[in-house]
Amino acid sequence: MNEPYARLKDRFARIATIGEASAMLGWDASAMMPPGGGAARGEQLAVLAGVSHAMLVAPEVAGDLAAAEAEGEWDGANLTLMRRAHLRATALPADLVEAMARANSACEKIWRGARAASDFAAVRPALETVVALQREAAAALSVATGLSPYDALMDSFQPGIGAADVEPIFAAYETFLAEALPRAEAIQAARPAPVHPQGPFATEVQRALGRRLSERVGLDYDHARLDESLHPFCGGTPTDVRITTRYVPESFEQAMLGILHETGHALYERGLPEAWARQPVGEAAGMAAHESQSLIIEMQASRSDAFLSWLGPELHRTFGGDPAPYAPENLARLWRRVERGFIRTEADELTYPAHVILRFRLERALIGGDLAVADIPGAWAEGMGRLLGITPPDDRRGCLQDIHWHDGAFGYFPSYTLGAMAAAQLMAAARAAVPGLDEALARGDFAPLLGWLRAHVHGQGSRLGFQDLMRAATGRPLEADAFMAHLRGRYLT
Amino acid sequence: MNEPYARLKDRFARIATIGEASAMLGWDASAMMPPGGGAARGEQLAVLAGVSHAMLVAPEVAGDLAAAEAEGEWDGANLTLMRRAHLRATALPADLVEAMARANSACEKIWRGARAASDFAAVRPALETVVALQREAAAALSVATGLSPYDALMDSFQPGIGAADVEPIFAAYETFLAEALPRAEAIQAARPAPVHPQGPFATEVQRALGRRLSERVGLDYDHARLDESLHPFCGGTPTDVRITTRYVPESFEQAMLGILHETGHALYERGLPEAWARQPVGEAAGMAAHESQSLIIEMQASRSDAFLSWLGPELHRTFGGDPAPYAPENLARLWRRVERGFIRTEADELTYPAHVILRFRLERALIGGDLAVADIPGAWAEGMGRLLGITPPDDRRGCLQDIHWHDGAFGYFPSYTLGAMAAAQLMAAARAAVPGLDEALARGDFAPLLGWLRAHVHGQGSRLGFQDLMRAATGRPLEADAFMAHLRGRYLT
Repeated sequence: MNEPYARLKDRFARIATIGEASAMLGWDASAMMPPGGGAARGEQLAVLAGVSHAMLVAPEVAGDLAAAEAEGEWDGANLTLMRRAHLRATALPADLVEAMARANSACEKIWRGARAASDFAAVRPALETVVALQREAAAALSVATGLSPYDALMDSFQPGIGAADVEPIFAAYETFLAEALPRAEAIQAARPAPVHPQGPFATEVQRALGRRLSERVGLDYDHARLDESLHPFCGGTPTDVRITTRYVPESFEQAMLGILHETGHALYERGLPEAWARQPVGEAAGMAAHESQSLIIEMQASRSDAFLSWLGPELHRTFGGDPAPYAPENLARLWRRVERGFIRTEADELTYPAHVILRFRLERALIGGDLAVADIPGAWAEGMGRLLGITPPDDRRGCLQDIHWHDGAFGYFPSYTLGAMAAAQLMAAARAAVPGLDEALARGDFAPLLGWLRAHVHGQGSRLGFQDLMRAATGRPLEADAFMAHLRGRYLT
Repeated sequence: MNEPYARLKDRFARIATIGEASAMLGWDASAMMPPGGGAARGEQLAVLAGVSHAMLVAPEVAGDLAAAEAEGEWDGANLTLMRRAHLRATALPADLVEAMARANSACEKIWRGARAASDFAAVRPALETVVALQREAAAALSVATGLSPYDALMDSFQPGIGAADVEPIFAAYETFLAEALPRAEAIQAARPAPVHPQGPFATEVQRALGRRLSERVGLDYDHARLDESLHPFCGGTPTDVRITTRYVPESFEQAMLGILHETGHALYERGLPEAWARQPVGEAAGMAAHESQSLIIEMQASRSDAFLSWLGPELHRTFGGDPAPYAPENLARLWRRVERGFIRTEADELTYPAHVILRFRLERALIGGDLAVADIPGAWAEGMGRLLGITPPDDRRGCLQDIHWHDGAFGYFPSYTLGAMAAAQLMAAARAAVPGLDEALARGDFAPLLGWLRAHVHGQGSRLGFQDLMRAATGRPLEADAFMAHLRGRYLT
């Protein structure tokens, strides 16, 4: 191996290892830490971030990157990704990075109060500062990468995808939704209303169920933990993934479906190529790719007719009582219910993309300078009206609902829907390639699906860009078609 | 503030913050981590150790230390401790540090099997390598510090205490024990045998009891957690301490007394001077000082007649059943039982120092080159015979019982007994200074004791050396006298 490249591999491995430490501390902060540990934890994460940033932008790195040579597809991709990481890390001046960290943290704090009080005016000045700094960062990243400013931000979350990829897909979906939503509602109205299983559901029983199901999907608890946190997430590292959920006694469904979702994320991390661990090419292929893996488990597989036919009796065995609510057709009506709502995180599969399309258009306009922060509430109401035909009664249920912008995350929202679309497209490809996939799900067996995902997604790491990954796995770049076909099958027949 | 000193303060704060991250990851490894996370965790800790070592020995540090000026007692002590840390870190060549890490880790692994098989010959070669490297390190540290080789190792664990301090104290204790042990046994034999409370004791109830008692002692769970691990310990950071224990259903006593012990450690960390957080002078004053704080809670206060008179009824309320085993006088007989045993960690207060004295003498001879590894089993048997009149039936219950030497920790053992002695001396001083201290314990109230400890020990950080801390708190350097007086009162009357 050429020496500069060998040095870089070692450096990036150390940077990734520090990232692992930070990931663990982040998990601990959400799942374990007593409240009094917060201030010290913030310092710990800041110091580790500073150390790894310094390792990435150290003077000798540029020389090594220039002199490095890498043979073969994996090493070649790895070197490209190293160059990308260095370019992005050096593109932003240190004082801008610091100003952003301060502004984001200040705005996020104000936002918590403003959301509770539904008072957009209270957070507006802080959000204006955040947006101004994001514009500045986007401009600097644009110069460095050659991407448009908004694309340069998107690229932080999902490399290889820009607004030009997203726009036609979202436009197609908007057209589809305008026709599909009323039809789905009409079909739904003509069917019996779903019956909710009656709780309370003991936390211990819910936890055991969640663990059992996640094991059945393929999670190995020698390399994983399941814990509780206010906001469920998947954290940790590839050999030690940590998923969390939240149990409420009235309903087991939120925790159970949440665990299946996080299990999808966890299996992606577990399945990354071990030989490339701690190298850029060994990482997951971006946030949309990650979301595709949680949604293919939660939405595509776990809510499929096949799996529900296995799950219904299993749930009745677990909780007992009246069997009617656990009938697979009732569970299907319950967990595939379409509703025009104000809140993104509560939205169903069909309307969720509308929430994302709205945010994508607004944040793109904000970064492009075509929308002022002061005009967000009006633009939000207008967009919700056009996309879903509803108007939020207040900003709490409108533009104040999400943390993202208030914490400085611009360019992230599209990942949710790109992930949902990729999940549908990958599921269709898996079904075509793996005979008996649904028959297996009907036996509660995820192995055929997981095997295909390991080969075509997890094990690929970041060797391919997102679109090439989709092409290699499905024969096509990302499109809305498979997702729309999936929705037609599930909601319009 | 003089600029080089200001730079050093910043650097040491960052080093300490990385140490906090490592402490949290260490806690996680013992209390939370699934087995499959072990390899990655080892890497994470190694990289963080490498980063903080590099920060400590960076070329610019020597210059800053030479140019630094610090005014006032705390800053002066802080700068002295910085110089000490730098001196010790630069004294050992990197290849020696690496060789030790490898040898310790290899020997520890072999030891686990050798202990189970009671096969000293199996671990002997690996232990010889460990000892040879320890001698080399001790010699290098001796040159740097001007201490004797063994003292230079002791100094890593308890700064400011050397063999010359320890020897007369241990000699006095050996003389005392020869007479006290048979007398204590005779007194004990003339009394009724203690009755064990009958289990099983549900883990949930034990956990709630442990938490309640530790809160009563003074631990604030906004800044602490109580979890489970195979080997109980106190970890974490001053604003986020993590104590662990192990519950067995047959007996609540092991977990409860263990929690009280770890609570003592935790309160020391919690009480360190906040204004000096993350500076060397703000740290605990060494391992003996730390052990004094766990033992003053567990041994001095919690097993006192006063506290047992409160605790007995409380335990009976908690567990119910026959009240007789919870009578304070029965608990006293149960938890102050003297027995000549082979195993250090199971030893009572009176005989525990004999185990330590034996190990102190052997390890000093090993480092000094006066004892060969091959001769350890014989020397062990001889020492146990002389100190406690018993001979271990095998090496598993003899020289193979402890991890310490096999993991390269030489110079640590004295801290246990120095801590026990310091605890007695501090308790006597607290009793003399604080009227009503025992009356408070008899009400289950630790506040007067904790208040005194905070002022005289916890809040002092490392401002004073260990002996000056003892002088300031008790009027005398560390002696065996208060400990012997305590034992006379508890076991010989």
